[in-house]
Amino acid sequence: MPDHDDYPKGRLDAFADGVLAIVITLLVLELKVPGISDTDHLWHALTHQWREYTGYLVSFVFVGGVWIVHSNATSFITRGDAILFRLNLLVLFFVSLTPFFASLMTTHLGEDGANLAVALYGLNLLIGSLMLSAFIRYAAYHPGLVGHGLADEELREIERRRRAIIAALGAAALLALLAPSVAVVLYFLAAIAFIVEPLVAARRARRTFDDERAAKSS
Amino acid sequence: MPDHDDYPKGRLDAFADGVLAIVITLLVLELKVPGISDTDHLWHALTHQWREYTGYLVSFVFVGGVWIVHSNATSFITRGDAILFRLNLLVLFFVSLTPFFASLMTTHLGEDGANLAVALYGLNLLIGSLMLSAFIRYAAYHPGLVGHGLADEELREIERRRRAIIAALGAAALLALLAPSVAVVLYFLAAIAFIVEPLVAARRARRTFDDERAAKSS
Amino acid sequence: MPDHDDYPKGRLDAFADGVLAIVITLLVLELKVPGISDTDHLWHALTHQWREYTGYLVSFVFVGGVWIVHSNATSFITRGDAILFRLNLLVLFFVSLTPFFASLMTTHLGEDGANLAVALYGLNLLIGSLMLSAFIRYAAYHPGLVGHGLADEELREIERRRRAIIAALGAAALLALLAPSVAVVLYFLAAIAFIVEPLVAARRARRTFDDERAAKSS
Amino acid sequence: MPDHDDYPKGRLDAFADGVLAIVITLLVLELKVPGISDTDHLWHALTHQWREYTGYLVSFVFVGGVWIVHSNATSFITRGDAILFRLNLLVLFFVSLTPFFASLMTTHLGEDGANLAVALYGLNLLIGSLMLSAFIRYAAYHPGLVGHGLADEELREIERRRRAIIAALGAAALLALLAPSVAVVLYFLAAIAFIVEPLVAARRARRTFDDERAAKSS
Repeated sequence: MPDHDDYPKGRLDAFADGVLAIVITLLVLELKVPGISDTDHLWHALTHQWREYTGYLVSFVFVGGVWIVHSNATSFITRGDAILFRLNLLVLFFVSLTPFFASLMTTHLGEDGANLAVALYGLNLLIGSLMLSAFIRYAAYHPGLVGHGLADEELREIERRRRAIIAALGAAALLALLAPSVAVVLYFLAAIAFIVEPLVAARRARRTFDDERAAKSS
Repeated sequence: MPDHDDYPKGRLDAFADGVLAIVITLLVLELKVPGISDTDHLWHALTHQWREYTGYLVSFVFVGGVWIVHSNATSFITRGDAILFRLNLLVLFFVSLTPFFASLMTTHLGEDGANLAVALYGLNLLIGSLMLSAFIRYAAYHPGLVGHGLADEELREIERRRRAIIAALGAAALLALLAPSVAVVLYFLAAIAFIVEPLVAARRARRTFDDERAAKSS
Repeated sequence: MPDHDDYPKGRLDAFADGVLAIVITLLVLELKVPGISDTDHLWHALTHQWREYTGYLVSFVFVGGVWIVHSNATSFITRGDAILFRLNLLVLFFVSLTPFFASLMTTHLGEDGANLAVALYGLNLLIGSLMLSAFIRYAAYHPGLVGHGLADEELREIERRRRAIIAALGAAALLALLAPSVAVVLYFLAAIAFIVEPLVAARRARRTFDDERAAKSS
Repeated sequence: MPDHDDYPKGRLDAFADGVLAIVITLLVLELKVPGISDTDHLWHALTHQWREYTGYLVSFVFVGGVWIVHSNATSFITRGDAILFRLNLLVLFFVSLTPFFASLMTTHLGEDGANLAVALYGLNLLIGSLMLSAFIRYAAYHPGLVGHGLADEELREIERRRRAIIAALGAAALLALLAPSVAVVLYFLAAIAFIVEPLVAARRARRTFDDERAAKSS
């Protein structure tokens, strides 16, 4: 049974931040610069790369999303152990494969083999997400790893909220086998929604608050 | 409405440091080593790459500048929330595109399509800078995210001081459409000025201080 | 004789985390995306790359394992000195060569020269592991570098437990000269075991605990 | 005049660790894997790459040496300012060019143009080292940036001890113009000495200590 005392939580954060930062930045190497041509042709060549841009955006948001959830979850964790460190490695293993599967997807999008390529891309997102949930669950059910009070309950809540996303990722990976382009559009919309949703929620909450205050004072 | 408590500020810094460090270092991969030749031809081949060196210097200083402003601003921030983390991601999204647009610019400089390529490079710098200002503004207007005292006022001041730079970046991007070479010269001079300016300001301040002391004691 | 006071332990961790995170992420650049083809041929082309996947998995787990052991060991270290910093550099020197030797191995696997390529890959893992043990031993025998209490004894214990792994790595490198494919299968199994073993140990410990409790209460 | 309070020292360390870790790891991308061939030819092809290995080793030790000196120096620094952050960027600017100049050097070693290529490599090491000394000097002469007590004196001492190295780097760069191979041998020996020297010094100090104790007790 591993000794809980000697796997510092700070390294868990620092290594994850490092790997996620590198993966998210390596994605740009997939964007190829078109050769020299006049302005009109250059514009045409650039707009022709919409597949690469879509893959870049979706992958960037996926890796960024893992970073946000990981930051959120480990804020409730106070120490690691041999298993939690390995689960962290497994999360990063699948996230590190994102540039490979993104390249596979954008190379084949709109061509033969697109259904397999997009499905594998989605499968990798799905497994990475499942590993992240397993990482969070493991910490939630091992009291020695979390801070006092309600930290374990917070972790369970974070994990529960993730189930809808994981179901959606699974559905999108299956859909990709039949209609890869539709699956990519869904990935694109989901990425935009992930970034924009909290902003909209905050605005709505503020408006409700203002309305209530206005109703009270009137 | 996101819970403010569980997005640790340390991760905001660490992830930004990671991404900015990688982007700034990936820029060197754009510098190509000339093939084997005698000393005179090698010197000629190296000096011929002035476009690449200019793009490297300007991009390095831009990314380094984002790092300095980000460090400066987050020193007044004590915690994050779901929105601040997403704004951080948006800043890094556009900064991460710098190597791609730098390569696009240096490939086309002095050739057909230079106006479009330089304008897109400048547009990316502009949007990245606007995102950084949005990041700072968001923290400044959400008291729960900053330390006590005058931290929010400091952030507003940092954001205000950035407006002239943002206007200049916008003007340079427009100018690039008409005269791309002039725009690049301006980027180059602005990069040098960004590095040298505080040094000159410090010297001047010290001289004024010495003069005043000399005037007093005489 | 170096001054012990001025080599902060935090930099030892941060630099190691940075280098290990980059090495582990660069490994993905070795995975090449097959060209456009229909689904059946794409599937065939992907499964044909089992050498690359094996090299990726083994190298990922090796670098991840160095990260786990380094995190574990430095949790008992409180300060560095000029020598410990250099030993850290030597560990990272050999770990940084992993992508090169992994590529050498996967290029030659099942071809001429495989025995030399796999043996060199294994030799690099072996030397890197020896350097990590030297790093741990040095700290263990210099009381000024570790925390109070039993920290030096803990470090000696960590180093002792590593001897079986190092002997196995040496044996595998020798075996590779005669039967490279068998050596790679062993690397693969060892990588899986490294990840899975603590989980199995934890399950067994829990079951024993439950059995004992059941025996007591009956 | 910049406000001293809002440039956190932690970011200075974290960004430098990030950039140095990436530069030191990118060096491995310069090592090319030979194509498939039998064991004898593979061994020959690998030993033929001694130029690349020398460039890798020297550059690795240079970047690692900057990391050690930077860690050592900033342990006496408690806060940054706008100028110190820019000097940090300048150090990293020249260090980031190391992979480019290393590739230039190893491509031309033993060929035409070697004297220019090796001299430029050495010049880059020299300027990077000068920038690091300027970074240290700036902190040493601005009391607001260092801790209390003798921290500024320690920094001045670190800077003074660096002068011999900088003179040697300057001499090696000049020598490279006349005899590039000799300069590379010197770089190689200096790199080995940098790593081994503290170990030898520690052994000698211990032996002297043991001898004195033996003399006393006899």
